[in-house]
Amino acid sequence: MNTLSSTDRTRLTRLPERSGTDRSALYDILDAGLICHLGIIVNGSPRVLPTGYGRLDDTLYIHGSTGASSLMAGPSQDVCVTVTHLDGIVLARSVFHHSVNYRSAVIYGRPQSVTETDAKLTALRAITEQLAPGQWDATRAPSRKELAATAVLAIPLSEASVKLRQGPPSDDEPDHALDVWAGVLPVHQAFGPPRPDPLLRPGIPVPGHIAQRVTS
Amino acid sequence: MNTLSSTDRTRLTRLPERSGTDRSALYDILDAGLICHLGIIVNGSPRVLPTGYGRLDDTLYIHGSTGASSLMAGPSQDVCVTVTHLDGIVLARSVFHHSVNYRSAVIYGRPQSVTETDAKLTALRAITEQLAPGQWDATRAPSRKELAATAVLAIPLSEASVKLRQGPPSDDEPDHALDVWAGVLPVHQAFGPPRPDPLLRPGIPVPGHIAQRVTS
Repeated sequence: MNTLSSTDRTRLTRLPERSGTDRSALYDILDAGLICHLGIIVNGSPRVLPTGYGRLDDTLYIHGSTGASSLMAGPSQDVCVTVTHLDGIVLARSVFHHSVNYRSAVIYGRPQSVTETDAKLTALRAITEQLAPGQWDATRAPSRKELAATAVLAIPLSEASVKLRQGPPSDDEPDHALDVWAGVLPVHQAFGPPRPDPLLRPGIPVPGHIAQRVTS
Repeated sequence: MNTLSSTDRTRLTRLPERSGTDRSALYDILDAGLICHLGIIVNGSPRVLPTGYGRLDDTLYIHGSTGASSLMAGPSQDVCVTVTHLDGIVLARSVFHHSVNYRSAVIYGRPQSVTETDAKLTALRAITEQLAPGQWDATRAPSRKELAATAVLAIPLSEASVKLRQGPPSDDEPDHALDVWAGVLPVHQAFGPPRPDPLLRPGIPVPGHIAQRVTS
């Protein structure tokens, strides 16, 4: 089995039974996500910002404007990237055992700037397709000027941990006698009907790769 | 208008037109969330972990086991708490203008331990009700032992920023002529039918405050 590394940063000290140790679990969590939360240090204090990302093999890519301070600060320091899926609200008989079902991946690494044009396009394709599968080939490719305005960073997936909780509440045995409902309220991300740009030219239908994502 | 503070940490340097400046926008984002992403510094590198939270007036509460290193590290350092709602995937005619619609709140502050019993119970109530409205009164209250095992931290909402993007894509004018669909794919969090604990005693129905959250 292709295992995840275990370092001081990725070893779980709390509830190690909730950790995942195979690399496919990491890929599954990353590939199912839409945004990550990027942690950096700015002037000595932590900053957490939501942003898009993409994965290719064992590299995670993020991008931003070349003018964004958070990304500019990136290449010279370790960052943390966390992707979380909330799967359910765990409703126990006791306040104490309330919890959530979730899957999360936490990645630590020092980002490297991606500057070569082909590598940059490959990374941007991964980031675009993560958010909107099928869009890279359906839309106008980045111009030279747009490419120059976009900073791309690569983070190796060499130091990562996976943590999850699934299943029913873990109430203490004596509480099972209480007259209190217990279980899980499932949570998932849903996609509504696409809203066309008011400036959309008439006669352009919603493409299949977008329409098929609608869940409600 | 009750405005948000503007400090070096909360002033937006990128796209300031996406910032929110009134306090009610901050409250709305926090009150609509289920989990936050907590950023701390551990051994010099950033760490971002998902966790529950609650809000009462101008204080944000988080909690954890007294044995959790991330929370133990909290009281002596500034932390960052970010709550993000993903509202849509912005599908532009150009790769470059792909984006997301979102609302996010970023809070900076130095957590204070909440140790007095009544204050701790009040904070835990806020955290529980944030995740599961109606559950505090419907379930068994924390015992003295459970309270002792739970660390509660209070973070003042005095340094916070709100950022959001809403609306259609912002394609460059010449791209409007392209034969490419553009618009927004709405994203929202949905709740499925409650799954009873396999150990649930027979004859206990799903309470109304849980059943009414189901969206699909």
